[in-house]
Amino acid sequence: MDFRLTEEQELLIESLRQVLANEITESYLAECDENHVFPDKLADALMDNGFGLLGVPEEYGGTPCDVLTQIMVIEELARAGGPAYMFTNAMLIDDMLTFGNDEQKRITMEYAGRGRMAFSLGISEPQAGSDDSAIASTATRRNGKVYLNGHKTWISNAGEYPYCLFLTRDSQAPNPHKAISMWWVDMTKPGIKLQAVGKVGFKMSKFYELYFEDVEVEEKDLVGVEGEGFLQLMKNFEIERLAGVAASLGWAQGAFDDAVRYANQRVQFGKPIGNFQLIQKKITEMQIKLETMRSMLYKACWEKENGLSVQISSALCKYYVARAAQEVIDDAMQIFGGIGYTTETRIQRFWRDCRANRIGGGTDEIMVHIAGRAILKKYKK
Amino acid sequence: MDFRLTEEQELLIESLRQVLANEITESYLAECDENHVFPDKLADALMDNGFGLLGVPEEYGGTPCDVLTQIMVIEELARAGGPAYMFTNAMLIDDMLTFGNDEQKRITMEYAGRGRMAFSLGISEPQAGSDDSAIASTATRRNGKVYLNGHKTWISNAGEYPYCLFLTRDSQAPNPHKAISMWWVDMTKPGIKLQAVGKVGFKMSKFYELYFEDVEVEEKDLVGVEGEGFLQLMKNFEIERLAGVAASLGWAQGAFDDAVRYANQRVQFGKPIGNFQLIQKKITEMQIKLETMRSMLYKACWEKENGLSVQISSALCKYYVARAAQEVIDDAMQIFGGIGYTTETRIQRFWRDCRANRIGGGTDEIMVHIAGRAILKKYKK
Amino acid sequence: MDFRLTEEQELLIESLRQVLANEITESYLAECDENHVFPDKLADALMDNGFGLLGVPEEYGGTPCDVLTQIMVIEELARAGGPAYMFTNAMLIDDMLTFGNDEQKRITMEYAGRGRMAFSLGISEPQAGSDDSAIASTATRRNGKVYLNGHKTWISNAGEYPYCLFLTRDSQAPNPHKAISMWWVDMTKPGIKLQAVGKVGFKMSKFYELYFEDVEVEEKDLVGVEGEGFLQLMKNFEIERLAGVAASLGWAQGAFDDAVRYANQRVQFGKPIGNFQLIQKKITEMQIKLETMRSMLYKACWEKENGLSVQISSALCKYYVARAAQEVIDDAMQIFGGIGYTTETRIQRFWRDCRANRIGGGTDEIMVHIAGRAILKKYKK
Amino acid sequence: MDFRLTEEQELLIESLRQVLANEITESYLAECDENHVFPDKLADALMDNGFGLLGVPEEYGGTPCDVLTQIMVIEELARAGGPAYMFTNAMLIDDMLTFGNDEQKRITMEYAGRGRMAFSLGISEPQAGSDDSAIASTATRRNGKVYLNGHKTWISNAGEYPYCLFLTRDSQAPNPHKAISMWWVDMTKPGIKLQAVGKVGFKMSKFYELYFEDVEVEEKDLVGVEGEGFLQLMKNFEIERLAGVAASLGWAQGAFDDAVRYANQRVQFGKPIGNFQLIQKKITEMQIKLETMRSMLYKACWEKENGLSVQISSALCKYYVARAAQEVIDDAMQIFGGIGYTTETRIQRFWRDCRANRIGGGTDEIMVHIAGRAILKKYKK
Repeated sequence: MDFRLTEEQELLIESLRQVLANEITESYLAECDENHVFPDKLADALMDNGFGLLGVPEEYGGTPCDVLTQIMVIEELARAGGPAYMFTNAMLIDDMLTFGNDEQKRITMEYAGRGRMAFSLGISEPQAGSDDSAIASTATRRNGKVYLNGHKTWISNAGEYPYCLFLTRDSQAPNPHKAISMWWVDMTKPGIKLQAVGKVGFKMSKFYELYFEDVEVEEKDLVGVEGEGFLQLMKNFEIERLAGVAASLGWAQGAFDDAVRYANQRVQFGKPIGNFQLIQKKITEMQIKLETMRSMLYKACWEKENGLSVQISSALCKYYVARAAQEVIDDAMQIFGGIGYTTETRIQRFWRDCRANRIGGGTDEIMVHIAGRAILKKYKK
Repeated sequence: MDFRLTEEQELLIESLRQVLANEITESYLAECDENHVFPDKLADALMDNGFGLLGVPEEYGGTPCDVLTQIMVIEELARAGGPAYMFTNAMLIDDMLTFGNDEQKRITMEYAGRGRMAFSLGISEPQAGSDDSAIASTATRRNGKVYLNGHKTWISNAGEYPYCLFLTRDSQAPNPHKAISMWWVDMTKPGIKLQAVGKVGFKMSKFYELYFEDVEVEEKDLVGVEGEGFLQLMKNFEIERLAGVAASLGWAQGAFDDAVRYANQRVQFGKPIGNFQLIQKKITEMQIKLETMRSMLYKACWEKENGLSVQISSALCKYYVARAAQEVIDDAMQIFGGIGYTTETRIQRFWRDCRANRIGGGTDEIMVHIAGRAILKKYKK
Repeated sequence: MDFRLTEEQELLIESLRQVLANEITESYLAECDENHVFPDKLADALMDNGFGLLGVPEEYGGTPCDVLTQIMVIEELARAGGPAYMFTNAMLIDDMLTFGNDEQKRITMEYAGRGRMAFSLGISEPQAGSDDSAIASTATRRNGKVYLNGHKTWISNAGEYPYCLFLTRDSQAPNPHKAISMWWVDMTKPGIKLQAVGKVGFKMSKFYELYFEDVEVEEKDLVGVEGEGFLQLMKNFEIERLAGVAASLGWAQGAFDDAVRYANQRVQFGKPIGNFQLIQKKITEMQIKLETMRSMLYKACWEKENGLSVQISSALCKYYVARAAQEVIDDAMQIFGGIGYTTETRIQRFWRDCRANRIGGGTDEIMVHIAGRAILKKYKK
Repeated sequence: MDFRLTEEQELLIESLRQVLANEITESYLAECDENHVFPDKLADALMDNGFGLLGVPEEYGGTPCDVLTQIMVIEELARAGGPAYMFTNAMLIDDMLTFGNDEQKRITMEYAGRGRMAFSLGISEPQAGSDDSAIASTATRRNGKVYLNGHKTWISNAGEYPYCLFLTRDSQAPNPHKAISMWWVDMTKPGIKLQAVGKVGFKMSKFYELYFEDVEVEEKDLVGVEGEGFLQLMKNFEIERLAGVAASLGWAQGAFDDAVRYANQRVQFGKPIGNFQLIQKKITEMQIKLETMRSMLYKACWEKENGLSVQISSALCKYYVARAAQEVIDDAMQIFGGIGYTTETRIQRFWRDCRANRIGGGTDEIMVHIAGRAILKKYKK
């Protein structure tokens, strides 16, 4: 075993840190959060400095990059206060580059090349949260056209991104595992209504309810193979989980950095609060969580890179990190005391944002469902 | 032992529930939170229906009321979604009625009679959070006047309430325990600057930084006895802790009510999610926390009512409930899944608001400091 | 509400403490544990001083006594280091006095009158632990006799008590809820084999595997009504759970008492270890657990006494206390450090004994099953 | 990073598994535990198959071996049910080989070559548990001889091993950090009294109180340099912590293996209990703990191997693993239910043994003390 980073990895992270330190301020990020806008300056800085298309195949203008490095970039972005996995280009667009047709790929890359996403993901529905087999949206053929109908919910950035990948289910399909299809929809089409939904965190992006009423698309707007929409999606789910995990870890590390520095400075009862055992205990336990979160994540990346299955490990990682990171941030808030509850520190933003990762990308409960059964099965052999 | 409520208590709570159900809607409260304004309609409804001056001595126009009943009213208000302990009149104004001079009392009651507070509490300072002995604000006599100087922080409603109780410390006082004094300050006086501070929750009230520069007051503006300001304050701290605890409990109970109902309704994978053991476990543990929080709180009220010391029990109560209530609300958010993270439910408001109670009114760590040492001391005898 | 004990309760507990202090030493109890024998001296002391038949109807020679008092006696016995609920006479024999025939009652009382149990409970089987409907033991009629066959497991004291209540199931019964019967069996009968099973705690009693091969009994040996054996048993299960809970609480309280005293005395790094915040935090949290365990238990007793259902509350109580008590004892062990791991303190005995209560009398998991579903159901109304 | 084991490591562990599977049975180990004797057959099997002197320098007859491999051997031994770190030869004797004189080395190797230890460690005293600076044992020179006096406690195997390393402190030493010396004592000398102390676990070895009254030794019996005894000891403490951690991990892994297999087999309510979510949740969380424990430990080994400081990481590792391993084993006991509480499984032995590791080798609290302050200090730079 070798726990060393490669020289390339160290240099890349170091140079990313420089870019972030020079070009992005916490007050800018706090402002984006306050005003519910995407941090354009951050996206631009990443693109301008070559961090935009890491892992995207060279044929599409990307930079080859191993999984671990991509993940460390997300972690570092989060540690610097960024809305981290809004920038994981290789991960987010890989599906389209694999399954999309030429036009879909061209548009995807046109946006990606500027550090922006071309499409939102229209998956969840009010009755289909954890249970994707309950998707009720439909695609109906009529007169050579395809008409999409349905109600989607919690769709991030549906109002900001120009396209949407809209999932439909064919309730008549003989094989229920081959019933889901994916459509590429221009959001300016008639029949689409959007309604923004307030939320407690992740405020640099917006959530939408999405109503499709007879939205007309063409056969060519199908993405990949009909009925295989879900398999296409699943392929990338595991790695998206790792991206979410990296963001949680980065926020937790950032909160920890702030809290330990504060514990060294902040004087109460005549000494730095770091001298009190109650604070030392928190810091010890936070550090343990950071170490263990990081090692789980990096190991899963290594497995992915080496073609090993990450079905169990990505679920374990998601379950553990989403919770442990929240605990670390909560402890950081407690160390800061009153000021940690105010917007004068970024801790409260991390606290609100990080909570989403126990729900989105598969809830804690779904992770237990995936991992628990798979572990038991392994022992049956 | 008798765990029954009196008939009066049951009737009063029942009638409070009616008032709240008839006159206050969740959408109104959500709006107040969104807009950072005090829920005037709620305060008015409470006054109009006789819940305004519970526990305030009759000579001041109040209604006699035992401690437990007052606490149950706060709990019920919180359960209904209210910013609960912004209404605990008897508790908040008792100090002024005990120590204030005639004019101070008259003004206090003028506001209280309309369900409003006359004064904010100017205690915390940037360097004096948990450690009140570090208060640096001063009162200086000059030409028959008193000049107040200092910088206060995290002062709730300082910009909304017409007066402020401003704490100063005399660093020359021979006895450091008798160095703190309390001043009654009209907030329209020259030399006062205010700056609002954003915060993650408790948004129906506002937080302020408060800068006093040579604010001129008179000798008559002293509240109570010079140098005894802290003792005066401490007297009521224990019961204020219980009020905060009641709010946390009420929010947790409200979140639980919502979550259990949702678990009965919400169908995923073909059955109500309440059928899944992972949800049943959460609900079992939430219910245990609610039961134990309530019994600790009610017992402390009974002790207070019966003249027993609540030094240890109020600290234990605060430490336990502030954390357990947050856990219950967090579990409720998880049961709601995606919708729990949005503003479509009130859970996220409770989640943000409740977190404050692990910091304000004495942090978790201060509670351990108070209770831990006191318990050890009892065993020395 | 009134949290005061009655004068009778206080006097009785005080006098019990005197008896225990005067007649029982920790070294005697440690010896019984070491040698795996029942503490006869303790049973005798309880009988001799009138604590033997609390709650047993007067017609059988008992002393009327409310549920709470009985429970407090168990708690106090445990606190003093006793194997607590081996003495809960009213609880353990109530079933026999209700359902038994005259001879069965006579024998039961003959033993109870000397502070001993007449019968063990032959319920669990290797394949029927949590799932009583899987009981495979049978009663077969042949030539006017009844023949019992089956394999029971984890039967406490089966080798010490002269009789056994043996449960059989009729797999042909039309109503599976009315398939279980209960038989009174003299343990000297032919066809009975016993095998002692080692265990980690509860060593003052023994566990047995019990093998019945054509054990011949008479029709008169049926206890109560045929096919109603389970209902008969269930009736008393809830209160037996409370008894187990009282024992856990008493052990936890005893461990706490010892640990706080030790923390006051034990000097390391130049001061009593109680001066360290890490110890103060433990003590604070232990005390909270003790308070909350006790209030849950006493409230359930009050409900039982007042004829209210304790279906949910006894399950919540069992689930919470069995775990929280173990945590308190574990913390006590940690406070004692090296000495807590040795047999020089009683903490390690409590730690081993208390663990049983998360399994016996219904596992944690069964408690979630009972309480979780019942709470959800209540909210459906 | 590379999480792969080397081929040598895999082969060695595989061959160790074969040896253990072929030569050691659980019933043999259970018997040793029951009878409080050292598992001689296990020690012999390890020696006979070349696992005895891993990491011991070749000049002393050992086999060169990296830190990680040594640690994995301990883990594997524990997983197989062995009293694991009673066999970590390189770790236990390294000190003597470094600091001992020729005779001391010769004796040490004479025993080690047969898989046995030559000496026990006489460190702890009743008043010097966590606080080694409170050691009160003395070495006094008189007539060219040295006389040792003092009372040691919790000394493992003092009655079984022929020699003892006895620590004394010179209370007159000008530098309190250079006051401790280490003496090599033949246990057959006059003036030594031993008293065995019962304990809850680790029963394959024995604990002793050790009383030295004017035990006469020579100057040549000093080990290493006078006054540097503690530094000598500390040098090896960090790696000994890792050995203890490896044992905890191995027990936890063994308990997990057993529990998952049992959950697949054990049928209740008509299906394997592994089908219940409450069990799946336990298994998911157990697996996460195993993964994170292992990665912390292996990384610390890698650091040690590469000459990096393990001051913080060995303390974090000890703190985390000693607790997490206990939790895993406790969950395994719960999955087994009644049978897990009996001696029919090895879970209860692991449960008793593993608890020691939160106390021995530095308590949890001392780990917080070491790691918490060191982390804070790092952030000061």
